[in-house]
Amino acid sequence: MAYTEVDQLAINTIRVLAVDATSKANSGHPGAPMGLAPTAHVLFNKFMNFNPKSPRWANRDRFVLSNGHGCMLQYALLHLFGYAVSLDDLKAFRQIGSITPGHPEAHETPGIEVTTGPLGQGFANAVGLAIAQAHSAGVFNKPGYELFNNYTYTIFGDGCAMEGVASEAASTAGHLKLGNLIALYDDNHISIDGDTKVAFTEDVLKRFEAYGWHTLEVKDGDHDLQGIEEAIRKAQQVKDKPTVIKITTTIGFGSKLQGTGGVHGNPLKADDAESVKKAFGFDPSQSFVVPQQVYDLYGKHAAEGAAKEQEWNNLLQKYGGEYKAEHADLTRRLAGKLPEGWEKSLPTYKPTDAAVASRKLSEAVLEKIHSVIPELLSGSADLTGSNNTRWKNAVDFQPPEYGIGDWSGRYLRYGVREHSMGAIFNGLAAYGTVIPAGGTFLNFVSYAAGAVRLSALSQVRAIWVATHDSIGLGEDGPTHQPIETLAHFRALPNLMVWRPADGNETSAAYYSALTSTHTPSILALTRQNLPQLQNSSIEVALKGGYVAVDAPNAAVAIVSTGSEVSIAIDAAQYLKEKHNVAARVVSIPCFEVFDAQSKEYRLSVLPDGIPILSVEAASTLGWERYSHEQFGINRFGASGPYKQVYEKFEITPEGISKRALATIDFYRGVKPRSPINRAFQQLI
Amino acid sequence: MAYTEVDQLAINTIRVLAVDATSKANSGHPGAPMGLAPTAHVLFNKFMNFNPKSPRWANRDRFVLSNGHGCMLQYALLHLFGYAVSLDDLKAFRQIGSITPGHPEAHETPGIEVTTGPLGQGFANAVGLAIAQAHSAGVFNKPGYELFNNYTYTIFGDGCAMEGVASEAASTAGHLKLGNLIALYDDNHISIDGDTKVAFTEDVLKRFEAYGWHTLEVKDGDHDLQGIEEAIRKAQQVKDKPTVIKITTTIGFGSKLQGTGGVHGNPLKADDAESVKKAFGFDPSQSFVVPQQVYDLYGKHAAEGAAKEQEWNNLLQKYGGEYKAEHADLTRRLAGKLPEGWEKSLPTYKPTDAAVASRKLSEAVLEKIHSVIPELLSGSADLTGSNNTRWKNAVDFQPPEYGIGDWSGRYLRYGVREHSMGAIFNGLAAYGTVIPAGGTFLNFVSYAAGAVRLSALSQVRAIWVATHDSIGLGEDGPTHQPIETLAHFRALPNLMVWRPADGNETSAAYYSALTSTHTPSILALTRQNLPQLQNSSIEVALKGGYVAVDAPNAAVAIVSTGSEVSIAIDAAQYLKEKHNVAARVVSIPCFEVFDAQSKEYRLSVLPDGIPILSVEAASTLGWERYSHEQFGINRFGASGPYKQVYEKFEITPEGISKRALATIDFYRGVKPRSPINRAFQQLI
Repeated sequence: MAYTEVDQLAINTIRVLAVDATSKANSGHPGAPMGLAPTAHVLFNKFMNFNPKSPRWANRDRFVLSNGHGCMLQYALLHLFGYAVSLDDLKAFRQIGSITPGHPEAHETPGIEVTTGPLGQGFANAVGLAIAQAHSAGVFNKPGYELFNNYTYTIFGDGCAMEGVASEAASTAGHLKLGNLIALYDDNHISIDGDTKVAFTEDVLKRFEAYGWHTLEVKDGDHDLQGIEEAIRKAQQVKDKPTVIKITTTIGFGSKLQGTGGVHGNPLKADDAESVKKAFGFDPSQSFVVPQQVYDLYGKHAAEGAAKEQEWNNLLQKYGGEYKAEHADLTRRLAGKLPEGWEKSLPTYKPTDAAVASRKLSEAVLEKIHSVIPELLSGSADLTGSNNTRWKNAVDFQPPEYGIGDWSGRYLRYGVREHSMGAIFNGLAAYGTVIPAGGTFLNFVSYAAGAVRLSALSQVRAIWVATHDSIGLGEDGPTHQPIETLAHFRALPNLMVWRPADGNETSAAYYSALTSTHTPSILALTRQNLPQLQNSSIEVALKGGYVAVDAPNAAVAIVSTGSEVSIAIDAAQYLKEKHNVAARVVSIPCFEVFDAQSKEYRLSVLPDGIPILSVEAASTLGWERYSHEQFGINRFGASGPYKQVYEKFEITPEGISKRALATIDFYRGVKPRSPINRAFQQLI
Repeated sequence: MAYTEVDQLAINTIRVLAVDATSKANSGHPGAPMGLAPTAHVLFNKFMNFNPKSPRWANRDRFVLSNGHGCMLQYALLHLFGYAVSLDDLKAFRQIGSITPGHPEAHETPGIEVTTGPLGQGFANAVGLAIAQAHSAGVFNKPGYELFNNYTYTIFGDGCAMEGVASEAASTAGHLKLGNLIALYDDNHISIDGDTKVAFTEDVLKRFEAYGWHTLEVKDGDHDLQGIEEAIRKAQQVKDKPTVIKITTTIGFGSKLQGTGGVHGNPLKADDAESVKKAFGFDPSQSFVVPQQVYDLYGKHAAEGAAKEQEWNNLLQKYGGEYKAEHADLTRRLAGKLPEGWEKSLPTYKPTDAAVASRKLSEAVLEKIHSVIPELLSGSADLTGSNNTRWKNAVDFQPPEYGIGDWSGRYLRYGVREHSMGAIFNGLAAYGTVIPAGGTFLNFVSYAAGAVRLSALSQVRAIWVATHDSIGLGEDGPTHQPIETLAHFRALPNLMVWRPADGNETSAAYYSALTSTHTPSILALTRQNLPQLQNSSIEVALKGGYVAVDAPNAAVAIVSTGSEVSIAIDAAQYLKEKHNVAARVVSIPCFEVFDAQSKEYRLSVLPDGIPILSVEAASTLGWERYSHEQFGINRFGASGPYKQVYEKFEITPEGISKRALATIDFYRGVKPRSPINRAFQQLI
């Protein structure tokens, strides 16, 4: 279809809005929106199916701006197409409380699918969105009912192309032959350090070919709208490979500084902004002006999108007549609800049950719940046999032609790519029909810190099955034994770190992770066996902390988590027998959940008047929050059989007892206030 | 040169030692050593220059086993060639206190260059080692004096090839045309999840070609010793590109389970171990047997290496006659000493000096010290203008043919690749002639968590210039505002997190980072201006914590870091003026350094008897260590002008005063014990 002056006007309107918003904020990145406006115009107006009035429509095309600093591009488009993003919102760009923050945040702005800005993440999120689409199609599509056939589009820049997380995700996408994934590479040769030739001279398309992608090129992304359109059309036609289109653009197109780093991260100077407006036929004395023709053009496309949603809704209704169970399953998932009564499948344990490693307890949970929660996708970063993340009859998510799985498969082979696994989780969760879970060693969740952070910030339900969670992994040694990891993730807002001590606590961790629809979880699990505790139950564990062993007139309380709780209980026994000292033992499997309980409850667990000692086989940092004295490991671990490693660090009944006695001595004559009592409340 | 039976015997000895050691430990990875023994034999015995009796010889060839789980390969080689690794050490594989831990640790074992195991890291370390070689050659080599011409060899497996950190480093190495870097890709098609076809079907060599590497292939790495040799020889000849050689091997060669995942991470079954020994001509009833011919063969090569070192030492001596200054510089660097009196170049500040952002203060330090510490290499992950890491007349480290720098250049353009930047730091530091420093935003040091952890574990002096360290970065918003980051890295053992409050503290941070030869540092620096403090000096800041403002009969002490110290001082003023309350303000720029001071000193800073409030614009986790009450940000930040963001979170004189008054109230009538007083000492 021929392009007219109105198309050009729309493109220039986007550019000028980006100039205006960054100028008004005196902050932000005009260059990428100005360079990408032609690409985005063609993509949004010629290809993308969406209904701005119904931004959560299940089969909408997904768009991810991986170079999130260019978000004025996206905010402008959202406004122009009629999403609930007003001109006033654009005027409030990068201001406190606005829905147009400095980088796109999915939970803040209608039409933003995922939170981007930290480079490389969005690209990997797009891979997750495309996996979710292919999986949903595999599960729900039926002859005559192509319910899920949306495309996932992502724009990414040189910065994203350099980040390892994107490389990992690209390799995964190529392997998985995600035909509905189309990535538009903004090849503008500029990053913050100037010309990319200083650090980035690889052949990006060849690299993507090596990953198994279909590759295309548009040489003049500033003017060749037809070329952009043709490339996207060709990309849509290749169904057995993801496509990357390298589109060469001029950053800051129209600015006096176009094509330089000067236009990347700073507003245009006043005279430059004026000259841009003049060149594009806008009145330089006015700001935030949108010609009516642009609203009309985009409004027409939006209306077409609304009609497509209506068609789809009709199709879905018809589907409901023919495929009742699938329809019920799908509508339930889209409503964000778990199946009624699913939690009855969670295993429970008696104290007389055998000692089991919590990674195995986690496997037992997955074995029980996978059939009642069909939206749960499991997987591992190449540690399946160690993470115990795969239920017995699991089917791999794989292109059927490999003969090792199919699109409806629920087990993902992420490869040794923890960071992209975490970022793919975020894309999967954002799609709306699945719940991602996946395994690695706790120590290597750190490789994915960037993605975990965005799970938390964007309020995504993602579940890390993080096994081998301490020195208890033994012989692999300090390179694999986490020390700082629990503190790191406990300090991250809106993330639950669960470290269950036994079977009931493990079931509680899964209950909490699955029902917390806006919070990711890390389940820290052991390699070694753990006994079933006397007082544990799913119910008490769901309070995040509880009295595991009580003792009348306790002289000390020992608070602990996970594998150290049973050692603390043995220490209490030892104190009683050898020193006639009564000790209470408290299990706090999840700080975040415990903190959310009433003060009264928390004080009943950690009361005033007795000294409290914490014990955990990890950094003591942060344990002061629940204890007066801390015992842990503030150095790196050691390679050896795990019991010997515990002995080396004195995390044994004797070693704990020694510190408990020192604690009692230190507080003799003092009735210490519980650390639950605070002078003031934190802001939340 | 033809290969004989003795070569085969050496190869099989390595294999059998790997079987024996993993069997004795009942733990470990026999598969990779068995598959890689032919490759390693050819590499070590035909190519590598090293002197086992002098493992730190500056121009030795470097070897990195990136798939560190295969470390019995390396331990066996070290033993056989005559390094200080005995048969008893091999028998103590994976035992506590041994020099043969579960993964190779550079600071534990002679002959191990870098600490590997966390996948992908070693590969990126090798890139760092190769950069250091090229740089050292650029600086020190003269006509007739090729002092630095060593090769860096690395073996990496499929797991490393999948990790983003290795992809990033490979792209950098290709850009930098590191001709002396030779990577041997162990293409055995097996990872922990079994056949790599489940997740990893990309064309690895094509990908490396795209990065600009020279690529070669050896189809039968189990038998074709000649082919391996020819490939390495060809690789050596290509001087303007790094080379990757894909060597197809059989994991666990010789085992009944060879070529399967069964032989990856578990010792061989007893009968399998027996049959391996029989097949290789070893007595199945004996373990840890080394035929004398193998010692002889390898001993001969080791002697040749020793002779080469002697030649090199002679060359160096001669060099000393002709190039006195360079010789003095080099020998000083190799001795691990900084230039005499360098610290006099550190800038100092008076309270009347202007307010300056600490990222600019950091730039001022670099501007002053770069000429007196020639071994300091700076750089940035594509944030040069924001991190202020480049001194004015800096020359880029680049292949000269680009025309934008040369090999002697001291400024590295890492690209948007934080993780590989951190891992390259570790390789640079391991080389022995340079000190790496480099910048990114504090929030994105998290991308490199895996590498930072290994800096700390392997006791490497690496310096992160981590700017934009809080909500103070303003408009970029929560995606870029660290909250958990300080707590994360404070919990990591052997890492110094410095968060300086002014110019003198910034100079102190550099002093500490540069003189701590076995500890990495993160310097958390502001985007916004900070006033120069009244009581600060390099000397007091080097205690890690000190009284920034004293007040007789203080009713409260406020402890803080970085940009919040001056706000706390304003709060103390506010308390005095509005409430007639005296407050002491304490600055603790570095927890780790403060913790190392005498108890007496620490108690003088944080005395018994007055309540202490901490203030930091980040997670409060961990601050309980120095305070009774904590004020911080336990949620994500906000996008807006930075002063408004501070106001939103009430980190203002008024906001702090309110919490200080609440703290005083809460402790009224109580003389709280200083948190410096503890019931017992932590194990270190």
